[in-house]
Amino acid sequence: MSEAVDYRYIGSRPIRPDGVEKVTGRANFGADEALPGMIHGKVTRSPHAHARILSIDTSKAEAMPGVLAVITAADFPDRAGFGFRLRGFSDNLMASDKVLFQGHPVAAVAATSIRAAELAAAAIEVEYEALPAVTDALEAMQPGAPILHEAMITQGAEEPNDGPTNISTQNRIAKGDIEAGFAEADEIVERTFVTPMVHQGYIEPHACVAVWKEDGQATLWCSSQGHFDVRNATARTLGMDLGDLRVVPQEIGGGFGGKTTIYLEPLALKLSQKSGRPVKMAMTREEVFRATGPASGTVNTVKIGCKRDGTITAMQAKLIYEAGAYPGSPLGAGSMCIFAPYDVEHVLIEGQEVVVNRPRVAAYRAPGAPQSMYAGESVLDELAQRIDMDPIDFRLKNAATEGTHAAYGPTFQAVGLVECLEAAKAHPNYQRALTEGQGRGIAVGFWFNGGNQSAAEVHVADSGMVKVVEGSPDIGGSRASMALMAAETLGIPYERIRVNISDTDSTGYCATTGGSRTTFATGLAVMRACEDAIVELKKRAALTWGIDEDQVDWAEGEARPKPGVNVEVDPLSIGDLAKNAARTGGPISGLATLNAQGPGPAFSVNMTDVEVDEETGRVTVLGFTAIQDAGKAIHPDYVEGQMQGGAAQGIGWALNEEYIYDADGVLENPGFLDYRVPVASDLPMIDTEIVEVPNPNHPFGVRGCGETPIVAPLAAVGNAVSRAIGKRMTELPLSPPRVLEAISHE
Amino acid sequence: MSEAVDYRYIGSRPIRPDGVEKVTGRANFGADEALPGMIHGKVTRSPHAHARILSIDTSKAEAMPGVLAVITAADFPDRAGFGFRLRGFSDNLMASDKVLFQGHPVAAVAATSIRAAELAAAAIEVEYEALPAVTDALEAMQPGAPILHEAMITQGAEEPNDGPTNISTQNRIAKGDIEAGFAEADEIVERTFVTPMVHQGYIEPHACVAVWKEDGQATLWCSSQGHFDVRNATARTLGMDLGDLRVVPQEIGGGFGGKTTIYLEPLALKLSQKSGRPVKMAMTREEVFRATGPASGTVNTVKIGCKRDGTITAMQAKLIYEAGAYPGSPLGAGSMCIFAPYDVEHVLIEGQEVVVNRPRVAAYRAPGAPQSMYAGESVLDELAQRIDMDPIDFRLKNAATEGTHAAYGPTFQAVGLVECLEAAKAHPNYQRALTEGQGRGIAVGFWFNGGNQSAAEVHVADSGMVKVVEGSPDIGGSRASMALMAAETLGIPYERIRVNISDTDSTGYCATTGGSRTTFATGLAVMRACEDAIVELKKRAALTWGIDEDQVDWAEGEARPKPGVNVEVDPLSIGDLAKNAARTGGPISGLATLNAQGPGPAFSVNMTDVEVDEETGRVTVLGFTAIQDAGKAIHPDYVEGQMQGGAAQGIGWALNEEYIYDADGVLENPGFLDYRVPVASDLPMIDTEIVEVPNPNHPFGVRGCGETPIVAPLAAVGNAVSRAIGKRMTELPLSPPRVLEAISHE
Repeated sequence: MSEAVDYRYIGSRPIRPDGVEKVTGRANFGADEALPGMIHGKVTRSPHAHARILSIDTSKAEAMPGVLAVITAADFPDRAGFGFRLRGFSDNLMASDKVLFQGHPVAAVAATSIRAAELAAAAIEVEYEALPAVTDALEAMQPGAPILHEAMITQGAEEPNDGPTNISTQNRIAKGDIEAGFAEADEIVERTFVTPMVHQGYIEPHACVAVWKEDGQATLWCSSQGHFDVRNATARTLGMDLGDLRVVPQEIGGGFGGKTTIYLEPLALKLSQKSGRPVKMAMTREEVFRATGPASGTVNTVKIGCKRDGTITAMQAKLIYEAGAYPGSPLGAGSMCIFAPYDVEHVLIEGQEVVVNRPRVAAYRAPGAPQSMYAGESVLDELAQRIDMDPIDFRLKNAATEGTHAAYGPTFQAVGLVECLEAAKAHPNYQRALTEGQGRGIAVGFWFNGGNQSAAEVHVADSGMVKVVEGSPDIGGSRASMALMAAETLGIPYERIRVNISDTDSTGYCATTGGSRTTFATGLAVMRACEDAIVELKKRAALTWGIDEDQVDWAEGEARPKPGVNVEVDPLSIGDLAKNAARTGGPISGLATLNAQGPGPAFSVNMTDVEVDEETGRVTVLGFTAIQDAGKAIHPDYVEGQMQGGAAQGIGWALNEEYIYDADGVLENPGFLDYRVPVASDLPMIDTEIVEVPNPNHPFGVRGCGETPIVAPLAAVGNAVSRAIGKRMTELPLSPPRVLEAISHE
Repeated sequence: MSEAVDYRYIGSRPIRPDGVEKVTGRANFGADEALPGMIHGKVTRSPHAHARILSIDTSKAEAMPGVLAVITAADFPDRAGFGFRLRGFSDNLMASDKVLFQGHPVAAVAATSIRAAELAAAAIEVEYEALPAVTDALEAMQPGAPILHEAMITQGAEEPNDGPTNISTQNRIAKGDIEAGFAEADEIVERTFVTPMVHQGYIEPHACVAVWKEDGQATLWCSSQGHFDVRNATARTLGMDLGDLRVVPQEIGGGFGGKTTIYLEPLALKLSQKSGRPVKMAMTREEVFRATGPASGTVNTVKIGCKRDGTITAMQAKLIYEAGAYPGSPLGAGSMCIFAPYDVEHVLIEGQEVVVNRPRVAAYRAPGAPQSMYAGESVLDELAQRIDMDPIDFRLKNAATEGTHAAYGPTFQAVGLVECLEAAKAHPNYQRALTEGQGRGIAVGFWFNGGNQSAAEVHVADSGMVKVVEGSPDIGGSRASMALMAAETLGIPYERIRVNISDTDSTGYCATTGGSRTTFATGLAVMRACEDAIVELKKRAALTWGIDEDQVDWAEGEARPKPGVNVEVDPLSIGDLAKNAARTGGPISGLATLNAQGPGPAFSVNMTDVEVDEETGRVTVLGFTAIQDAGKAIHPDYVEGQMQGGAAQGIGWALNEEYIYDADGVLENPGFLDYRVPVASDLPMIDTEIVEVPNPNHPFGVRGCGETPIVAPLAAVGNAVSRAIGKRMTELPLSPPRVLEAISHE
């Protein structure tokens, strides 16, 4: 299926353009901007997980030395006219009537030093009426549970809820006749799986610098995955015209989906407006854990039936996703992905999103998919055991291919699942013999990948160097991939391209870097902008030679007369044409904007070998192999980096990470000592194999590669542990106490 | 000749977009950038006006506390292979073998504080062989004068000089037969005029911040009139590919031509490279005076003959312009402008540029024209007195009009000199009766105005606000004029346009803001980019309505079906189209680049009444009226501001400003206390009248307005003083001692 195309630049592995800045510490991240007269902002946060705000007295704080501004929800536009969702979004930034999670902002102060701001933030007096909290989704669904939003209507429900509810959303994806499917099955497995709320664990806390000007215009420097959408969201909550806010992107020290939304930005702007000063705000690690958006904890029940020959007859899921304090979980994506890898006639997926007294969740790589697919791929693994079939063969037998009609909607064009499964089966790591106490887990991952709007410009400098301008923050090496695609399109070396990620006032709208859309969509805009520049370059050559534009070819970075055109001239390189641009009509530039259609779904297969220590329950990951269809790997190093990074995060999610709340809804482990992300010594070298089944909707076949890697590791590790201890594990993390307990009950 | 066109936005006077930032002090100028780890650079400068550098010992400086880098010319690329001009340009930045003016850089240091850098700069030991200095152009032309450049060839000379010379350039403009012309004359006046070297007097000293990265790429923040050309010049002297240097424009605190070149930028980059730190450099006022580029002092001899009826028969000039230490004076422009206002058959202009031991001159508004036209307009004034003719009538009789073939080359299209002269004659200020001791001076000014390359992009934000991106620093309100032209082109309010001056990596090349090119050329690029966006907007409307693109009109900021197109739809505003852009193909943008042809020459008439105090020689300017053809005044406030600013600077040049050197070539007045620029109390309210004779080569008729205002004031003031005291004054400044001396000798 995969065709070998000879590319000159894409597929190579040059050093990344921002590498030097980042290894020398010169790169400017969210907290690195400094402005004359700048002061510092701090947030006062709720100690309660659920409480009514009776009054806020800011007078003591205002009187403290160095304090230049104090704000509460009263300083923001009146939210009475907002719809429920926008109101929730705004209340999440600064509570108005109720606090809904421990750490919820209730006020903010700006002062001449960080210490003065901290003292003043602590001096704000808030009178609360404490309310019972509920931090568990299942409990929140019970009759009589504490209600977070009295007026909330369950979205997607057939009928409006007749009383208050914490169920914020319901959804349903159906294909075929699920009961008929189970009736055909020889074996059926049904189990319920629990995954914890986890954090993306990005190294850089949220930070921004804001300047509000007296004419109502404002500038914001911040680290995010999408400064255009930060602009839009911030302007919306502040009632500004989005054109009045300029957002300058800083480098990002990790986001993984968690920097697709806003927390400090509107607060910093309001503090700047009130104080008349530039205001910097940066979270502590504790604030990041308590009050930014982690990934949903879930309770997912999966039932799958198959025939003895391995044919799956029916797949059913009931998904429950925590939203945190306000609606907005990735339940939808989790529902779409769970059974997408399989060509099965009868499918039913029903989902519920539940609000609880925890921070509002945010995106985390392939948002929603790791949780649901952990359940789906675990049940498949158990079924394979039941019918005594190799887990890869079992999946191969049911694998989605070109023409498969996925339950969530699309009919797949060329996809690479079979190729990934075959690569896994052929991989030497799949042949390694296991010893006592070891287990091997296999799981499939899936992400549909994103398209969306992007814009790019290309400016040819006098020396022939090409400046690419676009608006997608580089979160995983996209400067390099853009430069490679520009090099390939223009036919000039990678080193002659410079990619500049520009602010919201300097380039066209680019949707947020997320959903694995950027290499595909912004890349396409870059290529189109290069093609636009090539049209101009050919025009200039034609003018120079006195022939028609359509008599000029562009190849290998040069304009050449088309074969048969009767002129005796040497080719003109991009440098030659740039040098003469003044004489042929001025600077040479190209522009393209688009709403990219047809992103290519990407499948992965992960396999891992683990060893379980019987005495402690500790799981050691002996090896991990990630295989993924990238469509076309523009810069294979960064594709492999994504695969390794997703595996590392997924292993952490599977084995150790979890939000731990006490009975009052207080987070007990808001720091990297108690919230245990994997460190280097916890992980083996993660082997990678890139499969390339080109996306037919992209000139180079690009699919997108950032999300898929985190989807399969939870199930792969879970299956490996279950096989190692001979017992199906159904709750993450598979931390030593939990594994030990499972072993002990044997 | 002038047509009245009804414009909706251009010609109005909205507040300037950068006004709030500038009055609140928020705007970031050259010295306002701050980076983590930044250190400070200082220059070691020559105490001699002329000396050979025998050795430089940097060891003591290098050993001083806090010193992180020391550089000399040895740290720059070897200049042996450079041509004479590039070598001179580079030597001016950092002397290699000889110092040629007092203040010439010989080394620079970077240290952790400004004070440490100053101390280290002073600790650099330079051994000099002092050479005789020559700071006067006439002396420098004498046989046996000290020679600055042994190897210099006189450019433009018919034969190479047979020995060393300080004459760096010769030029000649001729039309008709000058001797025949004088033979026809009834009256001939010939005089020699002297103008001093003067400084532009911008408030903001030169400043920059430089970061050199280990990969050979660099970023520079600086205040300039053209960051693209700062990039090009800096890269050239450092032997870099210009694409490796990114220059970020800061706001400019005055330039007036003096910030079209570089001084500190390559030094800061080299210091950053050597220290591994960001380096800030900012000049003191004294450094600005001693070592940046003032305007040429000149010695200009003019001879004009006319008939008794006022017909001028011949105009001749011999111009001598100081270049300072290296060639590069505006002799050419001075020669082109001097007689351009007059339709005269016989013209001869011969010029010489002379190097002297003073700082290398730079541009100063209408570079070269005020000096030559001071001489020309003074002689015309005297001739008018001789033939007893009103000085306006005299000029009207000979005024250049459409079809006049100017001696310097072009045949004028529509020009507005006659209109300006008639406006002057009709002006109430011309009717005011003068009393004893008062005099009225009239003079004409001229500047050809510039075109050159520009680029612009237009991005429509989701709210329908339009972001204009271009690369011309706003030195006189161009953000406002660009916004007005964009508003007029798009048909949307000025307030819905935002203009962003972007860095060299973010937009296409724009030539330096100077020569009064920006409103014309960059404005044209902005208009073309708006038209490009309109094409896209019409496409989107057509798509929305399901009709063809060519069935859509764009008017008053809306897409409408063309009359006769059979669809029942409401017009779509730019906001409507922006909101739906995702559904119609993505973000809406436009792009244009050009090399603007056909700038419109601009004439002015200045008149001033002065009173001379007989006892002190002090000249009081009683009134000043500036009349100028702007073609079309896009933002009349800023055109008037240019006219008033040019008048103020011209009055200073005429009355008080001058560089004063001692016998050793040491500048004696390097500060605003001793170098006397006019303050508010020295000046009357300057009345303005804008004449509008549209430039036929611009859609709105724009000519350019920044240079012309400074051309006529020298002569207008000189003529007024000469008439007041009844004696022709021929040397500027007309300071009290000089005027008193003239009166005393009466």
